[in-house]
Amino acid sequence: MIVLFTDFGNGGFYLGQMRAVIAHRAPGVPVVDLMHDAPAYAPGCASYLLAALAPGIVRGAVVLAVVDPGVGGPRRPIVVRADDRLFVGPDNGLFEVVMRRATTVDCQSIEWRPAELSATFHGRDLFAPVAAALAKGTVEGCTLREAEPARCGSWPDDLPAVIYVDGYGNLITGLRASTLAPDVQIGLGGAALTRARTFGDVPPGTLMWYENSIGLVEIAVNKGNAARLLTASIGTEVRLER
Amino acid sequence: MIVLFTDFGNGGFYLGQMRAVIAHRAPGVPVVDLMHDAPAYAPGCASYLLAALAPGIVRGAVVLAVVDPGVGGPRRPIVVRADDRLFVGPDNGLFEVVMRRATTVDCQSIEWRPAELSATFHGRDLFAPVAAALAKGTVEGCTLREAEPARCGSWPDDLPAVIYVDGYGNLITGLRASTLAPDVQIGLGGAALTRARTFGDVPPGTLMWYENSIGLVEIAVNKGNAARLLTASIGTEVRLER
Amino acid sequence: MIVLFTDFGNGGFYLGQMRAVIAHRAPGVPVVDLMHDAPAYAPGCASYLLAALAPGIVRGAVVLAVVDPGVGGPRRPIVVRADDRLFVGPDNGLFEVVMRRATTVDCQSIEWRPAELSATFHGRDLFAPVAAALAKGTVEGCTLREAEPARCGSWPDDLPAVIYVDGYGNLITGLRASTLAPDVQIGLGGAALTRARTFGDVPPGTLMWYENSIGLVEIAVNKGNAARLLTASIGTEVRLER
Repeated sequence: MIVLFTDFGNGGFYLGQMRAVIAHRAPGVPVVDLMHDAPAYAPGCASYLLAALAPGIVRGAVVLAVVDPGVGGPRRPIVVRADDRLFVGPDNGLFEVVMRRATTVDCQSIEWRPAELSATFHGRDLFAPVAAALAKGTVEGCTLREAEPARCGSWPDDLPAVIYVDGYGNLITGLRASTLAPDVQIGLGGAALTRARTFGDVPPGTLMWYENSIGLVEIAVNKGNAARLLTASIGTEVRLER
Repeated sequence: MIVLFTDFGNGGFYLGQMRAVIAHRAPGVPVVDLMHDAPAYAPGCASYLLAALAPGIVRGAVVLAVVDPGVGGPRRPIVVRADDRLFVGPDNGLFEVVMRRATTVDCQSIEWRPAELSATFHGRDLFAPVAAALAKGTVEGCTLREAEPARCGSWPDDLPAVIYVDGYGNLITGLRASTLAPDVQIGLGGAALTRARTFGDVPPGTLMWYENSIGLVEIAVNKGNAARLLTASIGTEVRLER
Repeated sequence: MIVLFTDFGNGGFYLGQMRAVIAHRAPGVPVVDLMHDAPAYAPGCASYLLAALAPGIVRGAVVLAVVDPGVGGPRRPIVVRADDRLFVGPDNGLFEVVMRRATTVDCQSIEWRPAELSATFHGRDLFAPVAAALAKGTVEGCTLREAEPARCGSWPDDLPAVIYVDGYGNLITGLRASTLAPDVQIGLGGAALTRARTFGDVPPGTLMWYENSIGLVEIAVNKGNAARLLTASIGTEVRLER
């Protein structure tokens, strides 16, 4: 199975061209669009989001992940094997949090280059062919070499900030709910937030936070739009208080 | 075949996680994304839309339908068999109009619960595994029990209101064109609407209605945006006059 | 393989209904969503975009292309075979540029009509069944007849105008970079544009143009939105100066 995680957006032809390469090179391999509006240009935020999604991805899958503002620059293309999932993409921190939380990690740089490599679209020209080869269980023609990935040692294990805003205006943070002390208070801007289990637990219009379906602290307003109400967006900091 | 009908939107990772569950549990079963911007939080409007779409779905298909504002609350998960199509989703009225128009109807509640059931995402954790099992022709491990669905007896057979606004600003109503008297006049707000067969039948800028491709009354402006012109949205009432 | 190219947008049920027809009629045939926000109502701009994308489509594929503002009117449905790719859609100029750049071209009109043909949705009712039949290698039941396509002789070989605005606000033009003289200057509105190889080659905020991943001149601002900065949209003209 190939799982796609990008910041390409659902519009345009970028995704379609990448899908066409995979369909041609790995016919019969199931392709799952996990998400295509990952935090744009922001491998850091995307890294916390991908790490929260990773446990839900079946072992053995190839995850083709492209959040790559430095495309065409010096950053390397890599393959990371973490807990039996293979991650293919740029070595720009995107896989930092996945690697940190994995039990077993192994990294290889992609030395292979296609005959035609565009300057701006390595997702189609470089990463998709490698992901297709890996999904077919072969890397024939796609030379890999053991390598040390770039590490981001200064990043925290959990990020107290908004890393994604969903279509309802819910604010997803980089904090795993399971890491919080029971008496912690979560705030954003001037607002203090009630903890709830689900939307229906609070009256319409009430600000709250809950552990979302991928284990992260999510801030929402029942039947409302938290992003608008709090004028928050990707990068907005969250306060932890006791 | 599994047909998806949700209000998740095309963005985010909700859809992707649900697709991943299906790809893992029902490998090889074709999955068709019918629509993912069904009326949000509005199982009533969504019910009229789904019923208009249902005849176009091949018999034997499993329809995984999630418009579920009460997720985590007391509403039951159900499977409805209506005219040889299986509908899996919440028992909140979403299948009311499908059931009412079907020749044969049979309903079962889903008694099975997964080992891990998130409070906010039954689409991924509960409905998708059941849909996958049904599509493979087995419900092994997914206990079902004959049940009476919640019925919405007060709902009309056709809904004289906007139930969906498409990307062009066209207003789709809950009225089947085939149920209208030949001399009926359709109005919305202060506007009276000309009946047409297709866009090109009226000059640019003209308001009109026509029977759309799923048999519903649709209000549009040739080369214009009816939603903006009439400041109409989901729920806006439509007048029927003689 | 069936490749989809439409202006339906990713929302709504139009795409889903078309996909359901294909899944039912051509089970097992891979379907690739190339793009669904092709220039709306604009077969001219869409024609230059499709021609730039065509070389990236695998030979033997069936391209189901629907940008069809005249649906229900007199324009004919056609099948164009160009360099071993089959294009199915309306005879309204959408395939003009593909045909012009192809080495071998062959055109047939679709004489077959389905039992039920809606006035507004030939993508689902007419083009999708024909594409499915062609992808299965048969046109049994889908009568085709040799025909001369409508030609658009007055169109230039390259279009000096914006033909698509992507999700980042980048402006894609109908100009192939390979056709430009080395000393040409590209301008839009009052702005003159620097040529670059990729985003990172210029400081944030700088306007530039580069050859994009499908060979077209694309205008962008590093970490900015060119469409907003230049108030440009589909149809905005581009200047070529020496």
